[in-house]
Amino acid sequence: MTHEIAVVPGDGIGQEVTPAAVDVLNALEIDFEFTEAEAGDAVAEETGDPLPQETYDLAASTDATLFGAAGETAADVILPLREAVGSFVNVRPATAYPGVDAVRPETDLVFLRENTEGVYAGHEDRLTDDVATLTRVTTETASRRLAEFACDYVQQGDHDGFTIAHKANVMRETDGLFRETVADVASEAGVETDEVLMDAFATKVCLDPEQFDVVVCPNLAGDVLSDLAAGLVGGLGLLPSANVGPERALFEPVHGTAPDIAGEGAANPAAAILSAAMLLEYLEYDEEAAAVRSAVETTLEAGPRTGDLGGDASTEDVTNAIIDRL
Amino acid sequence: MTHEIAVVPGDGIGQEVTPAAVDVLNALEIDFEFTEAEAGDAVAEETGDPLPQETYDLAASTDATLFGAAGETAADVILPLREAVGSFVNVRPATAYPGVDAVRPETDLVFLRENTEGVYAGHEDRLTDDVATLTRVTTETASRRLAEFACDYVQQGDHDGFTIAHKANVMRETDGLFRETVADVASEAGVETDEVLMDAFATKVCLDPEQFDVVVCPNLAGDVLSDLAAGLVGGLGLLPSANVGPERALFEPVHGTAPDIAGEGAANPAAAILSAAMLLEYLEYDEEAAAVRSAVETTLEAGPRTGDLGGDASTEDVTNAIIDRL
Ligand SMILES: CC(C)[C@H](C(=O)O)[C@@H](O)C(=O)O
Ligand SMILES: CC(C)[C@H](C(=O)O)[C@@H](O)C(=O)O
Repeated sequence: MTHEIAVVPGDGIGQEVTPAAVDVLNALEIDFEFTEAEAGDAVAEETGDPLPQETYDLAASTDATLFGAAGETAADVILPLREAVGSFVNVRPATAYPGVDAVRPETDLVFLRENTEGVYAGHEDRLTDDVATLTRVTTETASRRLAEFACDYVQQGDHDGFTIAHKANVMRETDGLFRETVADVASEAGVETDEVLMDAFATKVCLDPEQFDVVVCPNLAGDVLSDLAAGLVGGLGLLPSANVGPERALFEPVHGTAPDIAGEGAANPAAAILSAAMLLEYLEYDEEAAAVRSAVETTLEAGPRTGDLGGDASTEDVTNAIIDRL
Repeated sequence: MTHEIAVVPGDGIGQEVTPAAVDVLNALEIDFEFTEAEAGDAVAEETGDPLPQETYDLAASTDATLFGAAGETAADVILPLREAVGSFVNVRPATAYPGVDAVRPETDLVFLRENTEGVYAGHEDRLTDDVATLTRVTTETASRRLAEFACDYVQQGDHDGFTIAHKANVMRETDGLFRETVADVASEAGVETDEVLMDAFATKVCLDPEQFDVVVCPNLAGDVLSDLAAGLVGGLGLLPSANVGPERALFEPVHGTAPDIAGEGAANPAAAILSAAMLLEYLEYDEEAAAVRSAVETTLEAGPRTGDLGGDASTEDVTNAIIDRL
């Protein structure tokens, strides 16, 4: 069976790390068909549109999309692309790797972030010169779907349960609905949960990240708390993510376009390649996914290393080392 | 001139650390008149109301209020109390102290958090069984008032400018209005600003807290990001805060009720006493404020220390040591 994969490198180092991830996928004995498409600042400058309809349609029809990064237009690219794949959950592992300097080397977390609503579904109005409003939306349907995914995730993996992070002491109806629905679904599925206020989570995860494992949260909470965890493991540079929908999914490194080093062939491809490993897992190539992950881990520890990790290897050197270790 | 101070110890260790702060204030040569009032879980259990009208009225009429902590009813106590003093800004310093274990010992930040709107002014609706909404409110008026305070703060202190943390790439109208208004006010006042997305801030502050100094943010962003900074300096235990309004203000340690140690006389009074130092500064007793702060710092470094810092001194021992060092 051939898998159609959309490849959307985007801007900056997206142009370098996404092809590296494709190289790694090509090194496996799997029948992939890659189709490349444009998105981001560069295509916006040319055409006025950061996300051409063809790119949207491609992401909406292929099995999976590998996305790189977008610059100023990031929100106009990634939010519609998440919608194109029907993604209801953003899966964001935050693991500290051996050999990589981390603020909290014991960090090993996975965030399951609601990916469709909250302030992101926000209808905004400028009511008067003085007043602007945003209507934050929470549905039981989306909360339930996320919770079902979280229960499967926990039951299939090596996890005891999950933590619900929210701010229901202030957002009583909306986060209240979220928290209650997620807890109910878990309890029906026999999955243990506990809960924490998102502000308290921010403190606690710094002090002792090991008290958490899988963290389920509303959209903006997931955005901020997973980026916080990225800081604890040593920067956004190394973290992959998956935007999962019912029929397709989009995979992206959590890092940005890194304009300071773009074009130099010096970017660390680890996050893009780890995102490709998440793609493999999504398509149920579990063995290959594990092999890629392990090759990346070995390379992070043993080198070669790119500049962000104190080395001077190129993107290509690192990619080749990873391929050699498959 | 006599200053009327409301004292609202609240629940748990609030009952222990708030009197400690009053003892320190009483040790100074200033004419304070203290009036105590109730709030929190205990009074709610008795009367059904976590914030008796007398307490609200007292906070709304005295020069300043010293608040301790509230348990389950925290939101029902502290949010109306902030309103009672007309507080438009929550000032939250996050400084790592010598002698205290910190994840990031170089952390030295001040958050100026908008204290009246955002999701906290949220009008919530349960539209259907499935859908709940919250209307987040941002006004130019509140953004401008916060920005004016921030400019004064920066100009009176030893600060080069401030950073605006927001999420205007998603909340374009609301955080857009916030960010634009704050930047405009600063530019008119000749105060330098830069800006950062709140998720990026969460990563960056872990990696290198020294790149930030004064951080101005909307209400919920300030809640979460300042708690994150509290984690970096070693827990909420040590941080004070001020809720400042045009005519009065309320001062509170950022920590909670600590039910595990409440009633044992073992709580660290540092945050409550540092909050009293912020009260002194607010009432323009700058010398006394500096003396209290310095006595707390010396005591944190040289001891005696409470259990949270690895010692076994009592709240009273620490308070007396601080008073001796004034
Ligand atoms: C670019 C932005 C819209 C996006 C988000 O807020 O989701 C980014 O921060 C992320 O986390 O992928
Ligand atoms: C108790 C809660 C309502 C409050 C807030 O969200 O402001 C608290 O977290 C704080 O930061 O003082």
